[in-house]
Amino acid sequence: MGKTIAEKIFASHLRDEPFSGTKVLDLDRVLCHEITTPIAIADLEWRGKDRVFDKEKIKAVIDHVTPSKDTKTAIQAKMLRDWARRHEITDFFDVGHNGVCHALFPEKGFIRPGFTAIMGDSHTCTHGAFGAFAAGVGTTDLEVGILKGVCAFREPATIRVNLNGALSDGVFAKDVILYVIGQLGVNGATDRVIEFAGPVVDAMSMESRMTLCNMAIEAGGTCGICMPDEVTVDYLWPFIQDEYADKAAAAADFKKWHSDADASYDQVLDFNISTLEPHVTYGYKPDCVKPVSEMAGAPVDQIYIGTCTNGRIEDLREAAAILKGRRIADTVRGIVSPATPKIFRDALAEGIIQIFMDAGFCVTNPTCGACLGMSNGVLAEGEVCASTSNRNFNGRMGKGGMVHLMSPATAAATAITGKITDARTLK
Amino acid sequence: MGKTIAEKIFASHLRDEPFSGTKVLDLDRVLCHEITTPIAIADLEWRGKDRVFDKEKIKAVIDHVTPSKDTKTAIQAKMLRDWARRHEITDFFDVGHNGVCHALFPEKGFIRPGFTAIMGDSHTCTHGAFGAFAAGVGTTDLEVGILKGVCAFREPATIRVNLNGALSDGVFAKDVILYVIGQLGVNGATDRVIEFAGPVVDAMSMESRMTLCNMAIEAGGTCGICMPDEVTVDYLWPFIQDEYADKAAAAADFKKWHSDADASYDQVLDFNISTLEPHVTYGYKPDCVKPVSEMAGAPVDQIYIGTCTNGRIEDLREAAAILKGRRIADTVRGIVSPATPKIFRDALAEGIIQIFMDAGFCVTNPTCGACLGMSNGVLAEGEVCASTSNRNFNGRMGKGGMVHLMSPATAAATAITGKITDARTLK
Repeated sequence: MGKTIAEKIFASHLRDEPFSGTKVLDLDRVLCHEITTPIAIADLEWRGKDRVFDKEKIKAVIDHVTPSKDTKTAIQAKMLRDWARRHEITDFFDVGHNGVCHALFPEKGFIRPGFTAIMGDSHTCTHGAFGAFAAGVGTTDLEVGILKGVCAFREPATIRVNLNGALSDGVFAKDVILYVIGQLGVNGATDRVIEFAGPVVDAMSMESRMTLCNMAIEAGGTCGICMPDEVTVDYLWPFIQDEYADKAAAAADFKKWHSDADASYDQVLDFNISTLEPHVTYGYKPDCVKPVSEMAGAPVDQIYIGTCTNGRIEDLREAAAILKGRRIADTVRGIVSPATPKIFRDALAEGIIQIFMDAGFCVTNPTCGACLGMSNGVLAEGEVCASTSNRNFNGRMGKGGMVHLMSPATAAATAITGKITDARTLK
Repeated sequence: MGKTIAEKIFASHLRDEPFSGTKVLDLDRVLCHEITTPIAIADLEWRGKDRVFDKEKIKAVIDHVTPSKDTKTAIQAKMLRDWARRHEITDFFDVGHNGVCHALFPEKGFIRPGFTAIMGDSHTCTHGAFGAFAAGVGTTDLEVGILKGVCAFREPATIRVNLNGALSDGVFAKDVILYVIGQLGVNGATDRVIEFAGPVVDAMSMESRMTLCNMAIEAGGTCGICMPDEVTVDYLWPFIQDEYADKAAAAADFKKWHSDADASYDQVLDFNISTLEPHVTYGYKPDCVKPVSEMAGAPVDQIYIGTCTNGRIEDLREAAAILKGRRIADTVRGIVSPATPKIFRDALAEGIIQIFMDAGFCVTNPTCGACLGMSNGVLAEGEVCASTSNRNFNGRMGKGGMVHLMSPATAAATAITGKITDARTLK
């Protein structure tokens, strides 16, 4: 019987199976940031095990609150920095070189098809866009990963999500994943891998695939995953060109990670995307989604464009296309946080930063910032934010604040009118 | 007997003199930011006096922590925003349009020769650079200012500081004011106006004069002040061109604010600036200053370029001239916060933002940020920062952190080597 991509990755990385269904996998990447890793570091130190399994396979970044906003976050950053220096972690990204982990690490070529990766961060599932198995873990798993380079997982069951048809103009990966989460529910994929396939995925850029996989966790999924193809090869080519004769050879090799035609799935869901409208969340769970037409006109106080979901260059381009030559409403604050220094610089070179500033946006340095209510745009009680991020939990962006999740295009259109707006209806 | 500029401004704005030596002045400007004004607003509301004396003479900005970093600062921002909207304050600068108050308000042409201005902020003295009397005040004075447009001051005694000679290459206004504070001591000008005069001031740009006046408070001064001249006219011309036939007429008119030759001073100090070296602080008081040569080689962890002292375009140009084509040391974090959106945009257009990023700096949105340890670069215990700001108090940029004040040029050179460095010695 055939295997899913997740099963193939599990089989290729299996170190041990201490109990039936519990698989200990070798890790290709242990990813670290300054919010969750310092706790692990402190505990490893306390246990007399201040070691790392492989200084090249561990990657670390300060991204959640950067530059530090107070003594607590300054200490967290310092703990990660001191640890990275002490263990000579090859790739550690400090202030000035840092950005949102789930945008920065792929950009650096750290994630490859067939890889296993863990991180003490819910949205580690993003990296599945490359045909990798990448999962968010707790402190204990992170400690073991740092020390031994292994992690235990349950045998993965997979939900196959076939995205059929094609995206219409003005509809984006964010709309697709919001719709899919609406269909699955916030627990619909718990302990499952969500495998995204079909012509809509095939036609998507890596950025869009990352947006899809990023929100797998919002349906409870352990990992989102896409089959690596020519698009994956193009993205990774600067990093893999010495390993393959040409791109075709790389694409052919990547096929070994494709799910087999006769693989067995927990569920197979088929969606026709051709008729999909832009979607927006209401309420405090990511599965509370509606077509934008049903939410249009709801006033907002703040627009936030950025994050590991939608802070990449493609996202900034989509927003800028709508903002160009326009001013945002006097009643709203606009904030854009390009996800990495490279994205910031590319946006600068393309004139996108200038478009945002001309429109009246505040452009911050790369950071997770407002998404999780830790800096750069925390809401006051009663305030409403239109956000391109991934979580609308009660108080996520500030106590008493309300978040509507949406695509960069919808967020940009909403900035212009000050009310939730379908970008396709803007004159 | 002749009068000083401060005495002339006092005489022209005198509303009342309830006690001998206590003068109630009419205010041309009441300046507000989101840290100190909300307390005044809340108290005025509680007293049933939620009114403003003049919505056009009051100017308000969110600048200290922006975008908001947590619930507390989000509420502070909301209080100022709601108040500004409620009273239709003509000039209120919110996220996306905001910058450091003492850079933004002059840039908007709000400060004119002969004006009186107060603000709930120590560095209000900056605005004296335009030949205005501008002083930081406490909450009660701010409330009275907002409500009645008046403020009571003692009769001003003035210390005349004659800056003779000329600045040598690589020596800047920041070096001058650090040196002067070193000579005066942190209480040397308490309850005094510091009048800066002489050929060094005459040759200075408005930006440099603002740097001088900004730090008057660090010697205890109520206000720093410069005589308005052709340089002042040039800076203000876009805002005053309808009021004068030509620039010469404006300059002639501004002379009415010059101190008379026979004015009486509390002290007159003469400094020869021609031989001045770049200066740097040590210790925790702004009068702990040394020539950079005596501090050279001391390691730092962070470089901070920005603030109301040195976050203007001239400052960024000086730093960029040194950073161009170079990379900062791996051991330091570099942070630059252009003081206003216009400065950010001018720096973008001049390629300065790119130079900072190429060098490895983190470029933040305009904000007071790290200067007062409230965001964007707070130090952890034991960390050392080379900063272009104005205060090196113990813990100012973070508990247990150490700050060395210096010019943008010295800060840029220090970033490159990772140790306090005289920019003139860089190869």
